[in-house]
Amino acid sequence: MASWVWRMLPRNVRFLTTSSENQRVEDCHRHQEAYGYFLPIQTRWQDNDQYGHVNNAVYYSYFDTIINHYLIRYCGLKTRLLTSPLVGFMVTNQCTFHAPVGFPQVPVAALAVEKVGHSSVHYRLALFPPKPAQEPPTADHHDLSDGFFFGHPKLAQFDTLACTTGSSVHVFVNPATSKPVGLPEHFRRGLLRLRRLASV
Amino acid sequence: MASWVWRMLPRNVRFLTTSSENQRVEDCHRHQEAYGYFLPIQTRWQDNDQYGHVNNAVYYSYFDTIINHYLIRYCGLKTRLLTSPLVGFMVTNQCTFHAPVGFPQVPVAALAVEKVGHSSVHYRLALFPPKPAQEPPTADHHDLSDGFFFGHPKLAQFDTLACTTGSSVHVFVNPATSKPVGLPEHFRRGLLRLRRLASV
Amino acid sequence: MASWVWRMLPRNVRFLTTSSENQRVEDCHRHQEAYGYFLPIQTRWQDNDQYGHVNNAVYYSYFDTIINHYLIRYCGLKTRLLTSPLVGFMVTNQCTFHAPVGFPQVPVAALAVEKVGHSSVHYRLALFPPKPAQEPPTADHHDLSDGFFFGHPKLAQFDTLACTTGSSVHVFVNPATSKPVGLPEHFRRGLLRLRRLASV
Amino acid sequence: MASWVWRMLPRNVRFLTTSSENQRVEDCHRHQEAYGYFLPIQTRWQDNDQYGHVNNAVYYSYFDTIINHYLIRYCGLKTRLLTSPLVGFMVTNQCTFHAPVGFPQVPVAALAVEKVGHSSVHYRLALFPPKPAQEPPTADHHDLSDGFFFGHPKLAQFDTLACTTGSSVHVFVNPATSKPVGLPEHFRRGLLRLRRLASV
Repeated sequence: MASWVWRMLPRNVRFLTTSSENQRVEDCHRHQEAYGYFLPIQTRWQDNDQYGHVNNAVYYSYFDTIINHYLIRYCGLKTRLLTSPLVGFMVTNQCTFHAPVGFPQVPVAALAVEKVGHSSVHYRLALFPPKPAQEPPTADHHDLSDGFFFGHPKLAQFDTLACTTGSSVHVFVNPATSKPVGLPEHFRRGLLRLRRLASV
Repeated sequence: MASWVWRMLPRNVRFLTTSSENQRVEDCHRHQEAYGYFLPIQTRWQDNDQYGHVNNAVYYSYFDTIINHYLIRYCGLKTRLLTSPLVGFMVTNQCTFHAPVGFPQVPVAALAVEKVGHSSVHYRLALFPPKPAQEPPTADHHDLSDGFFFGHPKLAQFDTLACTTGSSVHVFVNPATSKPVGLPEHFRRGLLRLRRLASV
Repeated sequence: MASWVWRMLPRNVRFLTTSSENQRVEDCHRHQEAYGYFLPIQTRWQDNDQYGHVNNAVYYSYFDTIINHYLIRYCGLKTRLLTSPLVGFMVTNQCTFHAPVGFPQVPVAALAVEKVGHSSVHYRLALFPPKPAQEPPTADHHDLSDGFFFGHPKLAQFDTLACTTGSSVHVFVNPATSKPVGLPEHFRRGLLRLRRLASV
Repeated sequence: MASWVWRMLPRNVRFLTTSSENQRVEDCHRHQEAYGYFLPIQTRWQDNDQYGHVNNAVYYSYFDTIINHYLIRYCGLKTRLLTSPLVGFMVTNQCTFHAPVGFPQVPVAALAVEKVGHSSVHYRLALFPPKPAQEPPTADHHDLSDGFFFGHPKLAQFDTLACTTGSSVHVFVNPATSKPVGLPEHFRRGLLRLRRLASV
């Protein structure tokens, strides 16, 4: 983190990170090994705001996208209101912006699961910018439809240090009643697959 | 806060609010008197996501809007890159979603300034939903261009309890060098006008 | 229309407007009297793109907003998928951009109904920028929740010449089957209220 | 085009396509061979609106993205306001929506250049949905950073019939004066590379 970024953080965020232990945790969260699932993010012309970088609100839509992508592809989430037995509502989320990215860069989003409750899920998130390309990437991949998991050689194409880190909490509710519902077993299993890495 | 929302909050957020002192602070932040400046927010059809409520990322664009509106209208911020001596970059932000809003509701955003540093500003933010209308509002107002300040009778048209609360930190930099710059005096004065109320 | 804007128009658009008759129609569409319903549009910080003006895609969300706002407020449209008997799908739309607007301006969107079919509606749309303010507007209004109709004194606060004109077509379908459905009578009546003015 | 979509088109669009000659042109524009450059589009959770499909305004940001991506990657466009000698302003654009797409689908956008003027460019655009996957795609690709050109085997993974077709016109201006400027030679060359296919 640039030292001036650090000085700007609000007291509550700084509190969490000023002790050497907390600083270590925060530092871990900026590294790829703290995450289990990765999805390249295609930036759009419209993402850049008047100052020429991706607008802060847009990062939240990147993180929404990797979360829902994982839930649909690997946990069986159905998102059609008319037929879905449970939908995820965001309870809280936050981001810290260490360095900017901008269109037309293609960074990679990263997801870890910190905790799976009865009807809630705590996520950690990050965005890693592409390395300045020396040579073009050569991996065979289906990145946009499947994403990839920690250990994939493609990760070498991205910076080891996140430009953005964040976290969020989903609570899953019945769309008809808006009451929390317990997570189905296969759903929980898909999420726990990303849990081990969160304890780094 | 609905009790189930409360149980879902992540550890770091709960920590800040579990002590009775912190709980009192958090409760204060959900009330209108903790804020100095207010701007009605026009929701858009596109703001609602597939689940029929304003998407979480969109709240951050509401809050960006009230902040930049205040800075331009009351602090003299120039936002044209080609001519502006300083621009604000977001360092960190967070939101907690207590209850949903949706198009076509017209909530009101609220802004307080918690701290003005050499080149940074810490904001607190909230969104108050409209009261179910008994009778139409009658105040003469130029709401969208000027906003209004705490004490304005128009606030009676909105719930006293925020549906969303948040915070964020801007650091102001020279657009040519991206280095932090000291805030001009008139800029600082405009911001301090919203500071007293933050100490509630 | 600035002459260089005119020269840039694609053949099909120019075709429609090169004859003196068509030019007259096009000119009419840039004036307030060609529209029946008006809704102020609150621009957002995020609407401006890297070049400092509202991005072209964002105008379509303004126009979506005035259309859906009118349908909900004056035609009884229900937009909850779980309970709505009909929903509007966009079949085609287009815009011509005569002059830019940008945050924090508050322009006014304008709506006319050109044709109401069995299950479709053809709209015309425009955006009028605010006049450079000599003196502040004094009308008592509930603009954002009710909008206003042609003839309202508030219109004097906006340019008489549109900065953007457009058109679009909705077809209404049953959300369960995606088949077109006939428009209910009260719905049709609400739309026809905006029709007379379209024939200007 | 579904016959009911066809019946809904506005008179001006129908006019252009009712003669057998025009119908042939319109039909051509729905096929891959009418386009020269292709870029996969990553849909986002936020792209879907309350009705569960990509919102009409979002298609325009897809098309903005492929255009600017091509201009930056293959024509040498610089988009930094502080240093760029020319920037593209949109003069007019339009879309026709033949069938919906939705998150998390990954369609491919397509671009052709219809005309390159002194300072303007007329584009044609389309979006092709992915084929229902029989077997996963196996091509080695750098799709998101380079896109690909007509003839690439990857196109076999997408429907041969566009779900959305559109067109738009850019005029390039000097950002300091907002006056049109002549297109540099290398810029023009990059654009003409996509022209031959437009005459299909």
